[in-house]
Amino acid sequence: MTTSTHLEGNMMQNHTPVTVIGLGLMGQALAGAFLRDGYPTTVWNRTAAKADQLVAQGAKPADSVGDAVAAGPLVVVCVSDYAAARELLDPLGAVLDGRVLVNLTSGTSQAARETAEWAARRGSAYLDGAIMAAPAAVGADAVILYSGPRSAFDLHAPALRSLGAGTTYLGEDHGLSSLYDVAVLSLMWNILNGFLQGAALLGTAGVDAATFAPVAKTGIGTVADWLSGYARQIDDGTYPALDSTIDTHLAAMEHLVQESESLGVNAELPRFVKALADRAVAEGHGGDGYAAMIEQFRRPAGVRP
Amino acid sequence: MTTSTHLEGNMMQNHTPVTVIGLGLMGQALAGAFLRDGYPTTVWNRTAAKADQLVAQGAKPADSVGDAVAAGPLVVVCVSDYAAARELLDPLGAVLDGRVLVNLTSGTSQAARETAEWAARRGSAYLDGAIMAAPAAVGADAVILYSGPRSAFDLHAPALRSLGAGTTYLGEDHGLSSLYDVAVLSLMWNILNGFLQGAALLGTAGVDAATFAPVAKTGIGTVADWLSGYARQIDDGTYPALDSTIDTHLAAMEHLVQESESLGVNAELPRFVKALADRAVAEGHGGDGYAAMIEQFRRPAGVRP
Ligand SMILES: NC(=O)c1ccc[n+]([C@@H]2O[C@H](COP(=O)([O-])OP(=O)(O)OC[C@H]3O[C@@H](n4cnc5c(N)ncnc54)[C@H](OP(=O)(O)O)[C@@H]3O)[C@@H](O)[C@H]2O)c1
Ligand SMILES: NC(=O)c1ccc[n+]([C@@H]2O[C@H](COP(=O)([O-])OP(=O)(O)OC[C@H]3O[C@@H](n4cnc5c(N)ncnc54)[C@H](OP(=O)(O)O)[C@@H]3O)[C@@H](O)[C@H]2O)c1
Repeated sequence: MTTSTHLEGNMMQNHTPVTVIGLGLMGQALAGAFLRDGYPTTVWNRTAAKADQLVAQGAKPADSVGDAVAAGPLVVVCVSDYAAARELLDPLGAVLDGRVLVNLTSGTSQAARETAEWAARRGSAYLDGAIMAAPAAVGADAVILYSGPRSAFDLHAPALRSLGAGTTYLGEDHGLSSLYDVAVLSLMWNILNGFLQGAALLGTAGVDAATFAPVAKTGIGTVADWLSGYARQIDDGTYPALDSTIDTHLAAMEHLVQESESLGVNAELPRFVKALADRAVAEGHGGDGYAAMIEQFRRPAGVRP
Repeated sequence: MTTSTHLEGNMMQNHTPVTVIGLGLMGQALAGAFLRDGYPTTVWNRTAAKADQLVAQGAKPADSVGDAVAAGPLVVVCVSDYAAARELLDPLGAVLDGRVLVNLTSGTSQAARETAEWAARRGSAYLDGAIMAAPAAVGADAVILYSGPRSAFDLHAPALRSLGAGTTYLGEDHGLSSLYDVAVLSLMWNILNGFLQGAALLGTAGVDAATFAPVAKTGIGTVADWLSGYARQIDDGTYPALDSTIDTHLAAMEHLVQESESLGVNAELPRFVKALADRAVAEGHGGDGYAAMIEQFRRPAGVRP
């Protein structure tokens, strides 16, 4: 059937060859997603056997990192940490020139910016990325954040979108993807810890965590709706108390500390929450809304405003 | 019109006389909501002038706390704290007998339980409540939690529902409303602090809080959906890592600490988050899911499991 063959020919033309270096849990998921979408995929891993299943699915195994990089214009790296990534890439010379290097290894914004400078010296366009999902979500609804040159992202956006429906370009600053990553993770741990504190308190009265969970979810939804209002105040640098002042919060924080201490659950997080608000009050923000607390977060503890 | 008069007569019959003691910002909102719904409302406040506007709207001012209590079967108290509430109520004698006393003053579960015992000795059915809303939401969508005898709640549920569409009965234990109150507030402060930490980090790269807010909101929604799964594990006492192990979280927490320290934002909350996870790993939970962290919250810092 001519039409079908013609379409297939077109599809192959549109599918840039891609390389995946690092075939741990995440790297295997990335290479698998490329393969499923029909991208000619070259793979390399330090422990070669981890390529076997992908090769059975059509991936081409490379004998060296250099060969893997040479196989196409888009090179995706996903290993344990930046030290491992640099150990693999540093020895490479001119082979990186003109290619787009996408590093999905987790790390700090500083490591991302340094790696971008290193890549630039080798003539490579560098995108730093952060995968905000488990391997199972890759190729499906994974959120993957990218930062670096917009032109490099745009050039390979179709291939990168194969890795997750939540593919998002953040901006030119290579540090952004790592920063957004930790910012959202920080929020996640704080929500979970807040839930655990509440579950521990209610547990002393025989209330199940499962009974608390829907109440917590409703509360979380309410607070989530406040964030854009607080964000406007933070950006403006003025914190009128539209709902409740920090002084009012403090009185309730005192109850949280008392409950936690008297019921014998961990009171560290409550004390920390209260100590931050105490400092804001000491700096004259007692009559302001909670957004004024941003000033406590912007500088290290002990540094005066 | 006979029908109308008949209906009005019925309505008056169904509207129990109510008393509100304490006319601060919240007490005024409570009395106002009762009045708007047609409840014969007696009011008392230490500073008598705060009753004026309510009296103009039809409230009956009482000359003393005792007179206010004597005016009807349902007595709502809302003053600054439990010490103030007890100062007002302790001198009262037999007048409390047979009435339902509803205390909407914020406090701890212990104070609520003690006040319940005190009220029982005076023959009064006691409901403790927590208002999880600002005065403006009272009489509208305010969430108000109640705990104490179910029969007392049921008897006055129609009147109490006038105070907020989110009127919720939690159970017989008088401490529950205060505990749920601080549990949800704790979650709220942790979400806000998590957001502020992220906004401070992203701010170093010139990203507005307003740009972060929608990303944060999406992240919050995702985490909120995990809670019932975690809650089941907490109640079962087994914490299989369905998504990510605590070891994996720790590696990312390390990035959060590094980013915060190297970018010069406050690193206390990140260090606290990591320290808790470090302790869980030291106790052998590195391979478990995050729900295993409940064990860190259930006992004071420094107490071994
Ligand atoms: N898994 C997740 O849920 C998840 C989620 C978001 C982000 N991430 C990030 O994705 C990255 C990879 O995670 P993963 O889950 O795939 O980890 P993993 O299963 O432990 O795999 C680690 C990979 O790195 C390679 N590697 C480590 N050190 C190396 C070195 N010195 N030289 C060459 N290769 C080296 C390993 O090669 P060998 O096979 O030879 O050991 C393996 O391919 C990490 O930065 C992680 O934070 C993971
Ligand atoms: N406002 C809110 O957004 C909000 C939200 C949830 C819960 N709450 C809780 O509601 C309660 C009342 O709050 P509010 O906003 O109404 O406070 P408020 O405006 O400061 O009013 C305090 C009330 O308590 C009275 N009072 C204080 N000490 C007293 C004493 N020793 N003897 C007699 N009366 C005394 C005051 O009488 P005077 O007028 O004579 O001073 C006034 O009526 C608090 O427990 C608060 O935590 C408030």
